[in-house]
Amino acid sequence: MQHIFLTGLSGSGKSTAGRLLAQRLGRPLFDIDVLIEQHYGERIPTIFAHHGEEYFRDLESRILERTIQQTDSAIIVTGGGIVIRSENRQLMATHGVRIYMQVDPQISLERLRAQIASEEQQGKRPELRPMLAGPDPLANLLTMQATRESWYQEAEYLCVTNGRPVEHVVQEIIDMIEPTRNENEHAASLIGTPELSEPSTSDPVIPPIIRHVHIGDGYDTIVEWGGLSHIAEHLQRLSLPPRVFLITDSNIHDFYAPMLVARLRAAQFEPHVYTIPAGEASKSQRQLNAIYDWLVDQHAERREALIALGGGVVGDLVGFAAATYLRGVPLIQIPTSLLAQVDSAIGGKTGINHAKGKNLIGAFYHPRLVLADPLVLLSLQTRSRTEGWAEIVKYGIILDAELFALLEAHAEALREFSPASKALFCQIIARCIDLKVTIIEEDEREQGRRAILNYGHTAGHALENASGYGEWLHGEAVSLGMVVAARLAQKAGLYASEDVERQNNLLTALGLPTTYHGTVSAQDILSRMQLDKKVVGKRVHWIMPERIGQVRSMTLPDELVTQVVTEFFGAEEDHSHA
Amino acid sequence: MQHIFLTGLSGSGKSTAGRLLAQRLGRPLFDIDVLIEQHYGERIPTIFAHHGEEYFRDLESRILERTIQQTDSAIIVTGGGIVIRSENRQLMATHGVRIYMQVDPQISLERLRAQIASEEQQGKRPELRPMLAGPDPLANLLTMQATRESWYQEAEYLCVTNGRPVEHVVQEIIDMIEPTRNENEHAASLIGTPELSEPSTSDPVIPPIIRHVHIGDGYDTIVEWGGLSHIAEHLQRLSLPPRVFLITDSNIHDFYAPMLVARLRAAQFEPHVYTIPAGEASKSQRQLNAIYDWLVDQHAERREALIALGGGVVGDLVGFAAATYLRGVPLIQIPTSLLAQVDSAIGGKTGINHAKGKNLIGAFYHPRLVLADPLVLLSLQTRSRTEGWAEIVKYGIILDAELFALLEAHAEALREFSPASKALFCQIIARCIDLKVTIIEEDEREQGRRAILNYGHTAGHALENASGYGEWLHGEAVSLGMVVAARLAQKAGLYASEDVERQNNLLTALGLPTTYHGTVSAQDILSRMQLDKKVVGKRVHWIMPERIGQVRSMTLPDELVTQVVTEFFGAEEDHSHA
Repeated sequence: MQHIFLTGLSGSGKSTAGRLLAQRLGRPLFDIDVLIEQHYGERIPTIFAHHGEEYFRDLESRILERTIQQTDSAIIVTGGGIVIRSENRQLMATHGVRIYMQVDPQISLERLRAQIASEEQQGKRPELRPMLAGPDPLANLLTMQATRESWYQEAEYLCVTNGRPVEHVVQEIIDMIEPTRNENEHAASLIGTPELSEPSTSDPVIPPIIRHVHIGDGYDTIVEWGGLSHIAEHLQRLSLPPRVFLITDSNIHDFYAPMLVARLRAAQFEPHVYTIPAGEASKSQRQLNAIYDWLVDQHAERREALIALGGGVVGDLVGFAAATYLRGVPLIQIPTSLLAQVDSAIGGKTGINHAKGKNLIGAFYHPRLVLADPLVLLSLQTRSRTEGWAEIVKYGIILDAELFALLEAHAEALREFSPASKALFCQIIARCIDLKVTIIEEDEREQGRRAILNYGHTAGHALENASGYGEWLHGEAVSLGMVVAARLAQKAGLYASEDVERQNNLLTALGLPTTYHGTVSAQDILSRMQLDKKVVGKRVHWIMPERIGQVRSMTLPDELVTQVVTEFFGAEEDHSHA
Repeated sequence: MQHIFLTGLSGSGKSTAGRLLAQRLGRPLFDIDVLIEQHYGERIPTIFAHHGEEYFRDLESRILERTIQQTDSAIIVTGGGIVIRSENRQLMATHGVRIYMQVDPQISLERLRAQIASEEQQGKRPELRPMLAGPDPLANLLTMQATRESWYQEAEYLCVTNGRPVEHVVQEIIDMIEPTRNENEHAASLIGTPELSEPSTSDPVIPPIIRHVHIGDGYDTIVEWGGLSHIAEHLQRLSLPPRVFLITDSNIHDFYAPMLVARLRAAQFEPHVYTIPAGEASKSQRQLNAIYDWLVDQHAERREALIALGGGVVGDLVGFAAATYLRGVPLIQIPTSLLAQVDSAIGGKTGINHAKGKNLIGAFYHPRLVLADPLVLLSLQTRSRTEGWAEIVKYGIILDAELFALLEAHAEALREFSPASKALFCQIIARCIDLKVTIIEEDEREQGRRAILNYGHTAGHALENASGYGEWLHGEAVSLGMVVAARLAQKAGLYASEDVERQNNLLTALGLPTTYHGTVSAQDILSRMQLDKKVVGKRVHWIMPERIGQVRSMTLPDELVTQVVTEFFGAEEDHSHA
């Protein structure tokens, strides 16, 4: 298969789009500039400075040629100047399709400056970009563009990137190069124009689904396909001071932070960005203190908002920082994982881990706004997105037989997360938020009814805990936990076997695990369930389904639990004789 | 003047009562056992073990004699066995009065065990008390008592200590030895019997003053003279699990923790005690983490309560721990300083300091109960109690001309904190709590009206900050801050000069500072006021009195502020020429 070459000015977003494109299409990714630096062991500006441009261009051509020949069907991100040499243009035309990522030089300048700021913030020495040298970097970029535009325009495809969300850009590319991939919709229907507010007739815009939460002073949760692009409008409605503190993680930052910063600046906000390392380890006192220090250093004031942009870790950590900095500052939750959108960003639970247990330190603290944009889920890896379905199935079982049936009917499309079903995603995510909000309005602090949200979590938490939080994603563990809970309910005579089967079939259809093959022993699971913090007066309270859409909380005989858990996780021969 | 000797069994509370008695009477304190250990460089059990009892008794007699001769009018705490030798009894009879602190051996055993547990918890190696050795320590104590009772009874005074609050015991002693000290009341009227619920006819019991707070699920604030003794009854009304986690500081611990523990145990609670070092430095992330670790180690559960026993530091720190451990556990505030009783324990502000500023990290979190016992204020040193009047005067000025007039009418009695005025103290403290609660019910999170509570705090905080929080107690700084604010209001034409004078006269009458003689420069105060976190949009909002009992929030011309602050704090010659 042919290569796909991304070309365009520095700051056009080639690298970010390339990463997501490679992920979406399951193709290898190569970045010529990165390969040159790896090969030469020096940063590109240094090569330029020590050896001159000619030397660099020779190197660039050689690496391009080698990459083309040694790989197949790759996404190849090129340097801004690769089009200068006709031999390079020829090579690319012969071995694939070129996509010119066109950007307004003003916007490219902003992106480059944001990258430098981000590198500085992460304590890296920012790369000296030659085009930013001199008194008028914009003039440099305009000159470069003018010089190269006709060469760029030789590309087979043109994609205007100007500050648009990377998923829009990438979806547009996919639709261009694989027009039959989504047969049921117009090629560019997902994308529309850069201004989503003016859609083409073929792109029925899905209106935002808003659920007002009646807790404290009240706030909105908004589900909106492409809603990230409207961040500024959403914030403007909250009457916040212009300074906002956006905190995200190293995985998410490059995808969305520059776009959000640009949108916010355009609307006269003054965004400041802080990036934490991605991963559960960041939900720590150490990282929390780093955020406090950052806020204190900038004299962040009590009316100024924190924006949590990321999955559950970012939402919990930043939420807790917002809850406790100056005894609480405004918080905006922008969840970027399916799990966070339907669960962790909703309900006000924030917190960090303690060395001896997860989520032991935290607060109930509600945001001023939750903005869930399902479009961003396209940038997730399949496994990360799939785990989110576990919590969604859970809502169906504990509260909503209709939702459950909807999931059954569309399991295939949901599992693939095809953009053709965007209206359905929005509907499902909004429904889950509505269900959770209804429960927490009734029982904000988990004193009673809120506990039903823990369906599947008793065995699920024990498994996560026993396997050290690496082997199983949270949603996967909850999926297995629901299988265990359903069996318990069935054996206790509460739950019909057909319903157990429907549950497990749906989990399987959505790509979730329903059988356990691992090294954790049933004994380990049993003893860890006793330590779970949902234990009341030392007896485990189980959330037991009675039928799909209805559960109750109850204790179970120890023998029954032992039997089912042992059957499911398997009595390990070696341990049983120990 | 004669010495006062405290005698009685180990665990009778001699040492604790001795400390408070010395403080109340302004007399020197000597503890014979401590002097022996200092002299010999070994713990007493070691001396016993290596040299036998005779050797120890010789040492004891020598130290007793020397102490009697070298000092005057001292409080001398003696070891339990001092009465064995007739020469010791003779010496004491000749040089002072003996007070036999009589204790039920069962209660003495509990106290000794609580002391050991407390020492272990503080990481000390507990002293091996010989009377606790063997299979039946209670039998040992009973034997000791039987052997020594007639010698103890030779004392001039008898005081039954059995689990009674130390202030009761000490007040009883004072009334016995100085019967004319409080001429207007019966000698023992303050104390009553060990069961305050059955008072003598000469002791009109002041009923607890309860104010229900309508925030969240609601809770009570209780002002009750001697209320600490009823801790168990108060907690029983809250339906808490039996385990409770009492956190106090090293100053407060010995006065109240053993008594509270005994009362709680007697009512089937299971108290666990943790002691932090006294002082502002404990309001730190480090100390907070130590509390988290302690709670996690004991698997403290979400329905189990934390009890904050202490002044503002303990209340803020433990309050924040309760707000954030398991996302919030029940909190009981038992404020032991006047400032905490009328201000910091009321209103839900909790938190710790950040390296770059006070109270930057925290939460709004309300307790399940606030129990203010004015009796405990008797154990405070004068300066610590006096600073509390500043916040009380503040309430008068911002909200309550009647309270202000009451303070004026009784300033003398209030300043001395004479137990004769206990009904008045309860009334005033309850009134302040009522005023503050009314405001926070309206504006829990200080978005508007609550700001009036900051009267006197703008310049006050700046002064505390500039002088490094050592020189001035908070209430003293607020007193000076009110003087500055009143002058500003006067110069701005808002406030009559007679009212300024009334305020300053009342502050003086209560023992508070109204003029500044120190090293902080006016310039320093001015620049720190700009950094205060109550700055909104960079302009300082001042709480300005219009008349006594009424204030408003407003900005003031910079020149006026500069002029008044400079006049008050004095332009430092050296700085003005720099």
